[in-house]
Amino acid sequence: MAILLENASVVTLNATKPILEARQILIDDGTIAQVGRKIHTEGTPITKRIDCSGMIVMPGLVNAHCHLTEILQKSFRDNMRMEIWRGYRATTEDLAKLTAAEIGTAAELACSEMLKNGVTAVVDHFSTRPGLSVDKMEAVLGAFEKTGIRGMLVPSLRDQDFIRLATQSNGRKSAKQTAPEPWREEVLTVLARLRRTRSHCGMMLGPSSPMNCSDALLREVVNVAEQFDLGIHTHLLETRLQSWAAHQIYKKPLCVHLARIGFLSSRLSTAHSVWLDDREIDLLASSGASAVHNPASNLKLGSGIAPVAKLKSRGVNVALGTDGGDTSDSYSIFEQMRLAAYLSRVVAEDPTNWITAAEALRMGTVNSAQAVPAWRGKIGMIRSGYCADLILLKPSLRLRPLRDVVHQLVFCEGGQSVHTVIVAGKVVVEGGDFTQVDENSLIRRVEPISRKMHRLYSRIKKVPDRSQKITRELYKKALAAKGLPVRFLTK
Amino acid sequence: MAILLENASVVTLNATKPILEARQILIDDGTIAQVGRKIHTEGTPITKRIDCSGMIVMPGLVNAHCHLTEILQKSFRDNMRMEIWRGYRATTEDLAKLTAAEIGTAAELACSEMLKNGVTAVVDHFSTRPGLSVDKMEAVLGAFEKTGIRGMLVPSLRDQDFIRLATQSNGRKSAKQTAPEPWREEVLTVLARLRRTRSHCGMMLGPSSPMNCSDALLREVVNVAEQFDLGIHTHLLETRLQSWAAHQIYKKPLCVHLARIGFLSSRLSTAHSVWLDDREIDLLASSGASAVHNPASNLKLGSGIAPVAKLKSRGVNVALGTDGGDTSDSYSIFEQMRLAAYLSRVVAEDPTNWITAAEALRMGTVNSAQAVPAWRGKIGMIRSGYCADLILLKPSLRLRPLRDVVHQLVFCEGGQSVHTVIVAGKVVVEGGDFTQVDENSLIRRVEPISRKMHRLYSRIKKVPDRSQKITRELYKKALAAKGLPVRFLTK
Repeated sequence: MAILLENASVVTLNATKPILEARQILIDDGTIAQVGRKIHTEGTPITKRIDCSGMIVMPGLVNAHCHLTEILQKSFRDNMRMEIWRGYRATTEDLAKLTAAEIGTAAELACSEMLKNGVTAVVDHFSTRPGLSVDKMEAVLGAFEKTGIRGMLVPSLRDQDFIRLATQSNGRKSAKQTAPEPWREEVLTVLARLRRTRSHCGMMLGPSSPMNCSDALLREVVNVAEQFDLGIHTHLLETRLQSWAAHQIYKKPLCVHLARIGFLSSRLSTAHSVWLDDREIDLLASSGASAVHNPASNLKLGSGIAPVAKLKSRGVNVALGTDGGDTSDSYSIFEQMRLAAYLSRVVAEDPTNWITAAEALRMGTVNSAQAVPAWRGKIGMIRSGYCADLILLKPSLRLRPLRDVVHQLVFCEGGQSVHTVIVAGKVVVEGGDFTQVDENSLIRRVEPISRKMHRLYSRIKKVPDRSQKITRELYKKALAAKGLPVRFLTK
Repeated sequence: MAILLENASVVTLNATKPILEARQILIDDGTIAQVGRKIHTEGTPITKRIDCSGMIVMPGLVNAHCHLTEILQKSFRDNMRMEIWRGYRATTEDLAKLTAAEIGTAAELACSEMLKNGVTAVVDHFSTRPGLSVDKMEAVLGAFEKTGIRGMLVPSLRDQDFIRLATQSNGRKSAKQTAPEPWREEVLTVLARLRRTRSHCGMMLGPSSPMNCSDALLREVVNVAEQFDLGIHTHLLETRLQSWAAHQIYKKPLCVHLARIGFLSSRLSTAHSVWLDDREIDLLASSGASAVHNPASNLKLGSGIAPVAKLKSRGVNVALGTDGGDTSDSYSIFEQMRLAAYLSRVVAEDPTNWITAAEALRMGTVNSAQAVPAWRGKIGMIRSGYCADLILLKPSLRLRPLRDVVHQLVFCEGGQSVHTVIVAGKVVVEGGDFTQVDENSLIRRVEPISRKMHRLYSRIKKVPDRSQKITRELYKKALAAKGLPVRFLTK
């Protein structure tokens, strides 16, 4: 099915000519075949024409780090630091024992929310309790298919607990490791199916965080990734507590250790990346790894402000992610772009180092695509040969008067302008409505699952938990520790 | 005209019972007459019934500090500190010589954008170049009337220039003062008309900033305010440069000086209030003045993070404002609430001091109403006897699953859910559409004015301006100065 977009104002992400007016875009077989003033469509039977007069056509936004299933726990908690928050989340999930169908429904809702807000591709760092299974992974992939989003499934892996390691006086060498869950066979089973069916979705490998994995597991991940040509995705130094723990465990900066065992490479993208020091930033840069900035989540959990301007200036590709629906509460990349630009200005350096609107827009599109090996050079821009993942915006009042489109998409847009969404050449949102998803039925299916989890959470939140006390005491130590980078204001 | 809302989930702003389910709300003669499970409507002929099943009914949001006309320069500039930004804005306005009609059109657009995003009351700190006139003030008031928003017009006053004063070695006593523009007669003419016609809109007095006003002018403002029972609104210590300049001019903390001349009182609200020190915060608190937090604008211009948690804990009423459309780019109080909660977490204190969703919601409604003497105890809550300023939200996907309404309104809502807006008992937005404003015609009228201004700006931005160099050098001094509060991260 070929689609011809006409009279389009196209966002190029090009610094010198950010907007091309009055363009035609030919979409054929899921790909952007041509972009031009008057293009040749001979030999391509056009099945659909869309008049884009008065609309803005931009690349679909890419969410380079999130957790879809967490949407079920949206708004359960507030005012807790990350580790305590995550403890509650995990325990609630343990008790809920979500079925594959429930996981699929949650993922469907998160993907739908994203599509309506202009996100066309998503990396789901998928952790599930009690453990990975083929049917649960297939449920997430099913949600990608049902909603039509381009999805990358990244099952989370771990075989140790960094807090236990950091607080053991005898160090990590003698630490008892949790037996790694079996994962290789399950992951490879699903991967084989994806490749056989030539799905437009894919998989990467996702150590939960390097500190929650033994070196043996990290090495195995690198080997499997090389063998099957997969990307690797992980959390990295999200909080002050992690930063403190890394020094306890490794007696050197974490990334120095990771470089030594061969974990850093251009296959890798690292979520959060808040507490890296200058040496670690340079190691990330020279390895070709990408950092994924999650501003809303870092703000909500008081984790600190990632050194984005510094990461960029040293040459690290910086992508954007929303993180999970119970930390940043929504899955909007428009908001992450705005926050990324804003937060760069809290660091009182020279204004020429502040993240501009154009840079933020690149972070939310082409840079985020760049963080995923399978998407590099294929999505995130409107250019012939690229996949046809794009969105049409009908400017809402918030974009008026409309002078500098790029500036206004980043600093003004709340999602209201998203009119039509195309993924892999398929129209999945049209005139603000889904073409594949029955929104009301989806809400009816998802609400009881979330309600059930909230009942479970209400029960556990009343019981004092010893691990929280330990975490709070460790935080005091971490906040008092000297020599760590500065990532938030103290007083 | 009496309106009966039925089956409403009402947001109370009450800590113990934040939501009341299945309520009726009777609106009569612009006022909330009754709220209850089953209320008596005998003797009140109901002219309109609205079934609110599945909707959230909350108080209209209140924008306690903004500049409406600045919407014409939305997106003109990026990556400049406040003083340089403002210089460009003022010069562009000087060249544009806006007519009263153009000012009215701009104000109409800003008010319309706000209404569609749930803001029902706004304080316009109105500065106009070359000067105040009755017809320009009436044009803004006309925009309030046309769109139906509740508006407070605050003409900006000044008679000196703080940068000149701060850089003069002989201090402020001998500084040449600009002759104050005549303002008393014009302001009182408009005020008399407002009171005669019993308009639901009003006026306050608005010294641009205390440092831009002589003590004589500030004293005159206090006298006129007392005589006519008016509120006073001003900018206060927005940037590091201002903080530095205040110490040069007054040789003591600015608020100590203001307290001494009788400027601090419960009539006063102070926009920004970023660079106050602890003593000044206590003076503000004991005077009963309100601080207006403008997080988006402070972020965009790199002005620093206001000490909101501290202001609150010392007892200052903290309101929210968007500031102008060319600094924070949009007029969304939903966004300001979210940013207020987020930014409180960049200050790495105890999480129990972080601004919660419930606190942020109070800041954007009842606290903002509290900052305006004429609105105290009259708007910002859904309670019988209050003005009927409220909004009905039909939860968009971003609010799903819907568990904690208050949490989600603050952390998830982008404005998409706003369905019906009622101001002073009048439905001004219904089903997402205006009842009084012709949106397309408004856009057609406003775009050429903004385009004309952009042409003027494009000309001046090419010419190097000596004052910018001076400002940059002063910033270096201000950044290097010791003893100022810490309001952003340095490195």
